[in-house]
Amino acid sequence: MIMAAERRAEAPKIPEAEGVKKDHSLEALDRLSQMLAEDMQSVNRIIVARMESPVALIPQLAGYIVAAGGKRLRPLLTLASAELCGYRGDRHHKLAAAVEFIHTATLLHDDVVDESELRRGQDSANTLFGNQASVLVGDFLFSRSFELMVEDGSLDVLRILSHASAVIAEGEVLQLATNNNLRTSEAEYLAVVSAKTAALFEAACEIGAIVAERPAADADALRRFGANFGIAFQIVDDVLDYSSREATLGKTIGDDFREGKLTLPVVYAISRGNDVERAFWRRTLENVEQRDGDFEHAVALIARHDGFDASLDLARRHGAAASAALMSLPQNPMRGALAAIVEFCINREF
Amino acid sequence: MIMAAERRAEAPKIPEAEGVKKDHSLEALDRLSQMLAEDMQSVNRIIVARMESPVALIPQLAGYIVAAGGKRLRPLLTLASAELCGYRGDRHHKLAAAVEFIHTATLLHDDVVDESELRRGQDSANTLFGNQASVLVGDFLFSRSFELMVEDGSLDVLRILSHASAVIAEGEVLQLATNNNLRTSEAEYLAVVSAKTAALFEAACEIGAIVAERPAADADALRRFGANFGIAFQIVDDVLDYSSREATLGKTIGDDFREGKLTLPVVYAISRGNDVERAFWRRTLENVEQRDGDFEHAVALIARHDGFDASLDLARRHGAAASAALMSLPQNPMRGALAAIVEFCINREF
Repeated sequence: MIMAAERRAEAPKIPEAEGVKKDHSLEALDRLSQMLAEDMQSVNRIIVARMESPVALIPQLAGYIVAAGGKRLRPLLTLASAELCGYRGDRHHKLAAAVEFIHTATLLHDDVVDESELRRGQDSANTLFGNQASVLVGDFLFSRSFELMVEDGSLDVLRILSHASAVIAEGEVLQLATNNNLRTSEAEYLAVVSAKTAALFEAACEIGAIVAERPAADADALRRFGANFGIAFQIVDDVLDYSSREATLGKTIGDDFREGKLTLPVVYAISRGNDVERAFWRRTLENVEQRDGDFEHAVALIARHDGFDASLDLARRHGAAASAALMSLPQNPMRGALAAIVEFCINREF
Repeated sequence: MIMAAERRAEAPKIPEAEGVKKDHSLEALDRLSQMLAEDMQSVNRIIVARMESPVALIPQLAGYIVAAGGKRLRPLLTLASAELCGYRGDRHHKLAAAVEFIHTATLLHDDVVDESELRRGQDSANTLFGNQASVLVGDFLFSRSFELMVEDGSLDVLRILSHASAVIAEGEVLQLATNNNLRTSEAEYLAVVSAKTAALFEAACEIGAIVAERPAADADALRRFGANFGIAFQIVDDVLDYSSREATLGKTIGDDFREGKLTLPVVYAISRGNDVERAFWRRTLENVEQRDGDFEHAVALIARHDGFDASLDLARRHGAAASAALMSLPQNPMRGALAAIVEFCINREF
């Protein structure tokens, strides 16, 4: 395996990376985590307790991927949404853990599907424990997530999260059909992203309003916030897979290119390219015949056609829609913190 | 691929196959299906309607595996249990479909885990559609199953089936640890089987009592029936993987041997074998270095140590416990039909 430091030295200089400007909102996620630190500790305790099993491999593997860190963004969204809605109990702790379990299960299955070797800068679980265990422990966490919801006892929450889970799976299957398919349109890309990523953001936020027993209008507003935030988040993720420096992103860059995934920057570059460029994309993404220097050439083509800027523009528009959705909700510090993490996620470099 | 007819010609003559005696109860499953034919039609309509998705690959793949037939044993158990308890509504249709979706999802994931090429005598879904789609469509069906339960609205049912799903995953992971492990004991084998197979039989039966709103004692009796039936069923399945003729079983035989699975007939043969035999098992099951004639030799060794008979004895004891559990329940034709399918499953040759 190539060490991260070596990879960094090889990373191409990408003009668009400077387009992603650094600003003070970069600390917004840390600030949100601090505001919710006590709640998050309870969530983490539930996560650790409920990944237990007499079958030792389960807590080992689940512990590996859960402990590998990650931003815990989705459970934070549930906690923040509940708090924004004025909720004062502790039901949201269990539900935030359920959300994280669904996310972790999809990560485990994604890595099997993508044959990823790295996840958050470390060996992915399937590399370390094998595909079989990753599939099955994903199933276990998914089931556990529903057990947690059943203990909570809200059929509304169960409805929202079981539906989100089905939509996520649909999105992942739809993505299989767009892989290696040069005809993938912006609309198809957005359909994939809305389902595979935004559906869980949306559900994580909505259940905050449900536990707080707020009127449907608030639940709708939080859904719209989550859905738009999720889309913005995934677009930026896909831009970074071409433009981030590996050590910063904490996972290999160029994965999407190597797997022939049709993400937004590429969709734009292909639609705006000439026949020679089209032949390049066909060879590299459709036939997945790749040589040294292809990735750097792909980055240059995307840049030439403003694929990064256009992608980030769309991310910003969804970010703005997310922030706008917050406006009908109570004005309190949590509302400001949620608006700030949208900014943070759009402007992040990792 | 070798055709089924060619494989049959190669199948070894196994004395134990005669030990599994044919009797009149062989038609019991057909009889149960006929008694519940109308209900089962409703269940099938729900199954077909709810595997729908705008993502075409999902109904294609799900339709392939669901249409591939199978015995629909688990949804039949839910229908039969509800009817045995005197239930007269139609809630059990949706719940039986939910049970079948959980089963189908685990089959899809199992085939990925086992790298099986055949399922019910046809190409397995992962052979035809790829591992990626099988993992994701399994996730979709699993989510759909919970959506069906949420629509039904019983938290008791949700609790029972989410718990069963977690236990199934635990059983599958535990099985990974026993694979290629000659030290697997009868107790460990039974722990795997109780979890990976019997847990869903148990839950499928129990929810019949739940929809019928019967007292806890009846739900307990149906649990015990399902648990013991499930264990008996799986033991017989594992015996047949060594002794059935391929064309009859509808899947490849010898799969467990080729994958180095420590099923009960082998567990007995190993514990009763000498050092030379132990070396044979180590080479074939632990190191999975297999040559022509090894499978036939394995069958002969199991037979020499009464591994088939001892396994079937244990299956019969669990079958008897299953029938005994039925005794506290109302005496009606459905009770007789359930007792008969236990007999059928123990005496089946496929």
